[in-house]
Amino acid sequence: MGNQINIGLLGFGTVGSGVAKIILEHQQDLHHKLGTEVKIKKVLVRDMTKKRETDLPADVFTDDIDEVLNDPSIDLIVEVMGGMNGAKDAIEASLHAGKGVVTANKDLMAVYGPELLRLADENKCDLFYEASVGGGIPLIRTMEDGLASDRISSLTGIVNGTTNFILTKMKQENMSYEDALAEAMELGFAEADPSADVDGIDAARKMVILASLAFSTEVQLDDVFVRGMKEIQDGDVDLAESFGYTVKMAGHAEKDEDGIAVSVEPVFIPNTHPLASVHNEYNAVYIYGAAVGETMLYGPGAGSLPTATSVTADVVAACRNLLLGMNGKRLHSPQYERKVKSDDKRFSRYFHRFLVKDEVGVLTRLSAIYSKYGASLATVVQNPVNDEEDSELVFITHKMSRQQHLDVLEELENTDVVLAVLSHYRVEGEKS
Amino acid sequence: MGNQINIGLLGFGTVGSGVAKIILEHQQDLHHKLGTEVKIKKVLVRDMTKKRETDLPADVFTDDIDEVLNDPSIDLIVEVMGGMNGAKDAIEASLHAGKGVVTANKDLMAVYGPELLRLADENKCDLFYEASVGGGIPLIRTMEDGLASDRISSLTGIVNGTTNFILTKMKQENMSYEDALAEAMELGFAEADPSADVDGIDAARKMVILASLAFSTEVQLDDVFVRGMKEIQDGDVDLAESFGYTVKMAGHAEKDEDGIAVSVEPVFIPNTHPLASVHNEYNAVYIYGAAVGETMLYGPGAGSLPTATSVTADVVAACRNLLLGMNGKRLHSPQYERKVKSDDKRFSRYFHRFLVKDEVGVLTRLSAIYSKYGASLATVVQNPVNDEEDSELVFITHKMSRQQHLDVLEELENTDVVLAVLSHYRVEGEKS
Repeated sequence: MGNQINIGLLGFGTVGSGVAKIILEHQQDLHHKLGTEVKIKKVLVRDMTKKRETDLPADVFTDDIDEVLNDPSIDLIVEVMGGMNGAKDAIEASLHAGKGVVTANKDLMAVYGPELLRLADENKCDLFYEASVGGGIPLIRTMEDGLASDRISSLTGIVNGTTNFILTKMKQENMSYEDALAEAMELGFAEADPSADVDGIDAARKMVILASLAFSTEVQLDDVFVRGMKEIQDGDVDLAESFGYTVKMAGHAEKDEDGIAVSVEPVFIPNTHPLASVHNEYNAVYIYGAAVGETMLYGPGAGSLPTATSVTADVVAACRNLLLGMNGKRLHSPQYERKVKSDDKRFSRYFHRFLVKDEVGVLTRLSAIYSKYGASLATVVQNPVNDEEDSELVFITHKMSRQQHLDVLEELENTDVVLAVLSHYRVEGEKS
Repeated sequence: MGNQINIGLLGFGTVGSGVAKIILEHQQDLHHKLGTEVKIKKVLVRDMTKKRETDLPADVFTDDIDEVLNDPSIDLIVEVMGGMNGAKDAIEASLHAGKGVVTANKDLMAVYGPELLRLADENKCDLFYEASVGGGIPLIRTMEDGLASDRISSLTGIVNGTTNFILTKMKQENMSYEDALAEAMELGFAEADPSADVDGIDAARKMVILASLAFSTEVQLDDVFVRGMKEIQDGDVDLAESFGYTVKMAGHAEKDEDGIAVSVEPVFIPNTHPLASVHNEYNAVYIYGAAVGETMLYGPGAGSLPTATSVTADVVAACRNLLLGMNGKRLHSPQYERKVKSDDKRFSRYFHRFLVKDEVGVLTRLSAIYSKYGASLATVVQNPVNDEEDSELVFITHKMSRQQHLDVLEELENTDVVLAVLSHYRVEGEKS
């Protein structure tokens, strides 16, 4: 290692080139922080002929991954190539070769995180993945270090910028879902195929990573209960506002003696809650600690430079460990066994919206069904709809289990006066 | 050190007893994180006869500080006794004895921070002070680690819970300043003598600590421009709201090629800015990084358990360093020379509110004075006051320097049609 640390960069897209730029431009700061030079020794690219705007010398670029992984002078691999199997192979090879790894690969970490972290531990290497969640927000580090002495009881996060941008436009500018999605695409906040974002899959992957770390337990993608944005019906955003709530696509994870529960779904958040003020493409994670109480981390959830900054912060941390010979000393293996809560142990208030026949006694009949399952109503609002034969009924319940919620909805759906269950939401972010 | 790390606790008030409680209750978690036991070996108290509710054995308590500082088995000193000279002596003695120090002492760090950090470096000891700013919010660690590779260009913080509580009550419940202060006192959010809080001194101390770290430069308390809450006049909070702003006591620090500028004062923050949604006793710091863009850290700014949690997080970090033999390896000495910006280099929009004689041409005369100093107006509102002979004039300016602001105000004050400068605020948190 000597007087410099050599880095092998796998990938030179927007994030990879951003990392190179930051490392080149911040040499003085890095030297002050580490007392040594940080050098990008090799960069793996797919197409050697492509013209690149960079201050890196031309001879660092290669299209042969072995040239990077087998270079004994390289101390640290930065994986920003994306994808699954190729990236997994590269990270495994790096760890086997005793090289630390920094990755921004959320998809990979959500599925193979525990396996790769175990491999890192076995090879006494660091495996850092700050940029895999929340772009420029130092979420992983904060949970690992800052709140190290606090037990995290739950966390609620807006961890997908695309859906938050769309919902902000729907609320603030009364845009339709389709128009907001189109604008998100135009601005580069949504991909050509936005399904991973709008269906909640991207957020679910991030919640797997966050929940695993927060609760020191293995969480699998299948453990996450997911509902996508298509569950949001016309009028829901305005209805939420009329009750003092904002509709957000939010991830939630909680842990108690009954186990963990992780979900991603559109929820109602009270307007007074700081998460309701997280607008546009910004992300935020609200953490409830046993001792510290409530904290929130807010910032850009994506973007080339923020993500590159998180990767570089990991590089700095990994370099510091290398210099001090403490690399691979932080064990990542989960402390607690995986145990998922059953639906009768997950408690929330719920918002239910029905289309009903407008006849005498309908309210009595419906509220009796709630009572039957041990649930009760906090707010009831009835609005006639246009043809004035039917009406819309909105209930906000007191706290009840998800099982009660499902039982009530099922019975209500089969009741003749209920014409349709229009929509339903969990209420999130209220004091219990 | 062997199989356990021994801690000497100086002080057993609300924070000290909280630290002891967390360490005792979290032994299992701590063991998982550190692979060793963390033991509180000695606790310095003032009054040995006082009855204490704690699970610590009685023989750890002592009223002789030398028993703690001279115990060779003690690896780490936790200073939570508060005060200035006694605490400074204790920290110096600890560092000279080669013991690392964790402190929550904001007053001390604001004044003697650079000196003590230098002493820590010289003695190859850690000196951690997370809890000195922002209670339970991991601000220091985030700025040191998470944003390590990013240059921070400015930060704006609500770093005093008392004043934020008062302003929240004034805005949300139309309380008078006096009533809100009384309620803050009742709830324990304000001290019997609240002057350090309401005059901005407490926030200024915190801004010194944050700015020093953010910009890697020495900042002195005298460098901070401070205006207290008494500058807020009747009606200002409502006026701000009518223009879409919230009045907040905010600290601000910025750095560019002209040097640094640090201030604490009541400012106007746009309601759409996340800092405007920081309510009650909560604190938050909004950080502008060159690369990462905008991030915010939010949480409880004070309180026994949050502060104790931050202290304990520092203890964990210090223990980890001790175990790895890397204690005292992080140099704290400032990288850049101290250089304070002159008033003609600090730019903002301003809000100016005057009482003027309601005569023809008054607006032309006043706006001509702005023009004379190269300033210009973005918003002008004129309201007759009750007796209808005078009127109130409100200006929101375009960006101008603090020097222009001062020059304009001085000339306006001496203009015969201006009966009084009622109030003036910097506008904070807008895109430049």
